[in-house]
Amino acid sequence: MITADQFVELLNRFPRVSSECIPLDAALSRILSEDVVAFENLPEQARSTVDGYAVKAEDTFGASDAIPALLEIIEPVLMGTIPEYTLNPGQAAPIPTGGFLPRGADAVVMVEYTNKAGADSVEITKPVTLLTNVLEKGEDAKSGERLLQSGMRLRFQDIGFLAAAGFPEVTVYRKPKVAILSSGDEVVPIGQKPRSGQIRDANGHALVALVREAGSEPVLFDIVPDNASMLRNALEAALSQSDVTVISGGSSVGARDLMKGAVSDIAGAEILAHGIAIRPGKPTLLANRTGKAIFGLPGHPVSALIVAQAFLVPFLHYLMGTGLQKGPIGHRIDVTLTTSIHSTIGLEEYVRIFIEKKSNGECEAYPIYGKSGMLSTMVKANGILVIPMNVEGFSRGETVQAVQL
Amino acid sequence: MITADQFVELLNRFPRVSSECIPLDAALSRILSEDVVAFENLPEQARSTVDGYAVKAEDTFGASDAIPALLEIIEPVLMGTIPEYTLNPGQAAPIPTGGFLPRGADAVVMVEYTNKAGADSVEITKPVTLLTNVLEKGEDAKSGERLLQSGMRLRFQDIGFLAAAGFPEVTVYRKPKVAILSSGDEVVPIGQKPRSGQIRDANGHALVALVREAGSEPVLFDIVPDNASMLRNALEAALSQSDVTVISGGSSVGARDLMKGAVSDIAGAEILAHGIAIRPGKPTLLANRTGKAIFGLPGHPVSALIVAQAFLVPFLHYLMGTGLQKGPIGHRIDVTLTTSIHSTIGLEEYVRIFIEKKSNGECEAYPIYGKSGMLSTMVKANGILVIPMNVEGFSRGETVQAVQL
Repeated sequence: MITADQFVELLNRFPRVSSECIPLDAALSRILSEDVVAFENLPEQARSTVDGYAVKAEDTFGASDAIPALLEIIEPVLMGTIPEYTLNPGQAAPIPTGGFLPRGADAVVMVEYTNKAGADSVEITKPVTLLTNVLEKGEDAKSGERLLQSGMRLRFQDIGFLAAAGFPEVTVYRKPKVAILSSGDEVVPIGQKPRSGQIRDANGHALVALVREAGSEPVLFDIVPDNASMLRNALEAALSQSDVTVISGGSSVGARDLMKGAVSDIAGAEILAHGIAIRPGKPTLLANRTGKAIFGLPGHPVSALIVAQAFLVPFLHYLMGTGLQKGPIGHRIDVTLTTSIHSTIGLEEYVRIFIEKKSNGECEAYPIYGKSGMLSTMVKANGILVIPMNVEGFSRGETVQAVQL
Repeated sequence: MITADQFVELLNRFPRVSSECIPLDAALSRILSEDVVAFENLPEQARSTVDGYAVKAEDTFGASDAIPALLEIIEPVLMGTIPEYTLNPGQAAPIPTGGFLPRGADAVVMVEYTNKAGADSVEITKPVTLLTNVLEKGEDAKSGERLLQSGMRLRFQDIGFLAAAGFPEVTVYRKPKVAILSSGDEVVPIGQKPRSGQIRDANGHALVALVREAGSEPVLFDIVPDNASMLRNALEAALSQSDVTVISGGSSVGARDLMKGAVSDIAGAEILAHGIAIRPGKPTLLANRTGKAIFGLPGHPVSALIVAQAFLVPFLHYLMGTGLQKGPIGHRIDVTLTTSIHSTIGLEEYVRIFIEKKSNGECEAYPIYGKSGMLSTMVKANGILVIPMNVEGFSRGETVQAVQL
């Protein structure tokens, strides 16, 4: 039996997936596999941030309502072009928000601080200093500057920035393909009516959703009966089509032995771990076949899903270029326990909890107990609490960190 | 000019989208539009949660290592069937984890507390009470019980529960279709090299990503020049193909007037608001055309995206069945300000901030200032702070709530 930390170390040795170039509109939530460097200035020249008049700032010094500066109106700036003329001292060019400043102009006076004085002149009633209301050349992004860093997850604003900077495509880590297999003589597909004594494949579909939520691409395989050679063949097929293979087997000792045997029988497969000092999830198996991970999840649905949350999801993020996080991914918040929770020394324990936000802003947490086959406990929970291996539990009233799910 | 609260009230009057029945594997993050009620018990009969022997609990009373209870081993329970025989007093049936208990059995003794005593007998060395190691009929879900509530967003564990309970399809709110239009003579598609003075369509692509992140379906339209009849035609086309139309126009007064005119010209369109007491985003326009919302976003990319974050995203969630939240959606955390932030009374202000987690677990926030055309400020920010209308700002050292983005 290995510890949870040792398990994470084993996961940390797998190679990351390769990268691919995809259209920008498909890149939301994907992880950059290389830095993005600006190839031009943004903006290319100085632009106005207001509606008004482009001027030389020094022409407005001392201007006021009582003694306005009088400037000659020249050709207006149009959107979509950079003016070709030069603005001379004593001149003002009408400019819309976003318009490019003519050569010679170095500030913009807002229209609110101007009065037309006949057809060709304008009064400026408030002085501006150099670059007032101006977005300078390269102020948003300088040519050669790193805009976004490799390893970052793209948010909508990053997509907008990449669009502005001229990247219709972007290079990101591939989505890992994850083969999902459920095994067990008693398991039937969800579309099928189970005969008496059979159960539906809950694990398979929950794992499809979990893998998708982790930004990876699930492939659900047919259900495999409890038969050594059929299990081995199914695993071989899964390995050939995926980056990661996840199999959830029966929870009985016999079914676990069968799964371990099938994995051992695969040419080139090495079992790295069978048994982790965690609860639930102790019988979890991890194997490596030429750089591809095989997760053998416990058969109990709750145990399988908690192990997947705590280890598979961070592993998928890691494969896509992030650092490998230990424990479930999610927002971490402080919760106060409404009851004491006991834990066994020597096992890292994952406790499903219900987090309730009180009117004073504090969060209270209630553990949700239930037998390990009960999926309803996972549905009732909105958080998880990790009790470290060397801790006997937490006391009622204690404030601890939990992960919101 | 209306207040942000009045704007939200206007949004709250739009009708929600209709619902649709989709395969379970496509239902992650979708919102249930009806309650899901169990049509059978889960499990259908009592099941064992361990490997061991199904027994009558009273046959084990007083059993110990010194004086074990001796029981007759009968036909083992197989996975995938419910035993047809009845267990009688003095008998024990070998049972795997997940196996169904035979009639007459009311508890399971773990294999660890048994010793084989010849071929046909087993010694029980620890007593069990009624229902020990047994998942009762209907304990996970009772026939007729509500499993999941209308309006909830489906997580991976909910998908697993629905699979277990026999729902290969599920009824959820449709994804609202959101038409995205960018207008402006100076704007060119991202695949095209801008001529001098032109800019790329950053808003369009950022909004595509934002709408997708909000669980809706974006449709990006061609860029529309600053021309009244072309704008009106593009809006008509967008309205006919979508539930919500979002147009981001130029930021100059002229471009804004053009947009307002084009919206007014649409038969049946009613402008509900033009001007909101927020910063940035004051020139935002909202119209209603036969129950379909038209958002006219400010032309400045940063203003457009902040208004979209603060109002469009919550509105899209609302259309899909949730309550309408005011302000940006995201995890709310307490941050301590490293500098004072001033705000104008009468305007609700959205301040981009960088949140830094300190080693003591506390979060510090730095405002990120920049001119309104600077998308790089949105990229540098990882949070947003809302300063209410009637507040003059926050002081350095003050702890306030921020939204993580």
